[in-house]
Amino acid sequence: MAKSNGTKRIVVVLAPGFEEIEAITPIDVLRRAELEVVVAGVGSTSVTGSHGITIECDIEVSAIDSAPDAIVLPGGLPGAENLAKSDAVRKLSLAVRSRGGICAAICAAPALAFSAFGLLDGRTATCYPSFEEKFGASTPHSEERVVVDGDLVTSRGPGTALEFSLELVAQLGEEERSKILSQQMLSLA
Amino acid sequence: MAKSNGTKRIVVVLAPGFEEIEAITPIDVLRRAELEVVVAGVGSTSVTGSHGITIECDIEVSAIDSAPDAIVLPGGLPGAENLAKSDAVRKLSLAVRSRGGICAAICAAPALAFSAFGLLDGRTATCYPSFEEKFGASTPHSEERVVVDGDLVTSRGPGTALEFSLELVAQLGEEERSKILSQQMLSLA
Repeated sequence: MAKSNGTKRIVVVLAPGFEEIEAITPIDVLRRAELEVVVAGVGSTSVTGSHGITIECDIEVSAIDSAPDAIVLPGGLPGAENLAKSDAVRKLSLAVRSRGGICAAICAAPALAFSAFGLLDGRTATCYPSFEEKFGASTPHSEERVVVDGDLVTSRGPGTALEFSLELVAQLGEEERSKILSQQMLSLA
Repeated sequence: MAKSNGTKRIVVVLAPGFEEIEAITPIDVLRRAELEVVVAGVGSTSVTGSHGITIECDIEVSAIDSAPDAIVLPGGLPGAENLAKSDAVRKLSLAVRSRGGICAAICAAPALAFSAFGLLDGRTATCYPSFEEKFGASTPHSEERVVVDGDLVTSRGPGTALEFSLELVAQLGEEERSKILSQQMLSLA
């Protein structure tokens, strides 16, 4: 577990076949912002991504017993499909929405997981190109690299992961820190 | 281990305290390019980065018995210092240079590891801002985001990791594939 500033707690969920850049970047950036990040695995605490990289998680996702301030779902295949199939991920995502927390997803995850959970209804979102076919009629699609609509933050793919993560820091109330991190990390955006 | 196209083999070395984005991004991108990537840990096959993320490696670095086509050193502190202190990393880096392979490093690693190994002499390089103080007099410093000088590829920090990785794919003879990956991954560069 990372050090905490005593305030916001964020769960990043890794299912087998997760996209590694999209998973590691938010964990790294949110911990740089001194937010508390819990890495939760689906089905195990040792999870392998879509490019063969195995990450040790802090906890299995079904063992999380209170909704965090934010949940982050990386994309990747079959990672995003495995997120969509997980009852624990569905319940945790809905619990975050219910408490007014931030639901964040990137690449295939907005379209495959959040859309199936009903979390995109009535909100504008983005995702990896062509996956917007999975959006419902009540979800306008944007081609922006990062889209914020209320408590929903969505983004497009590995190349947008840093922008997505810096926006999450800002949305979690650390706008100034997000700007400083963007400079320190030499973000191009 | 990733699938291989039967040609190039690349070793990415993780020492305790490595910068996670700078480590995961080249592994991910080089495997997308269907190059063979071996993830080697310093001192262990389970190594924790500077933001608390633990990665399972394929092999301990001192067990590698032949020089690969390329070696990649991520930055991070104390990761880059630990790379610099490792005899096995020094020997492997020198063996890659001797066989005409590509020596690639990002962030603090060019300045702390490659510079100490003598691999920057007579070549232009870049690194994380201010670490160029560690460059010798025979190493001109560039502020470009990725610098290629012969068989040396250097870059600056987490925000340049994707550009660095795509350039590595190109330098390994897969220029067309690098362009396609840049588009597929939605790189901003």
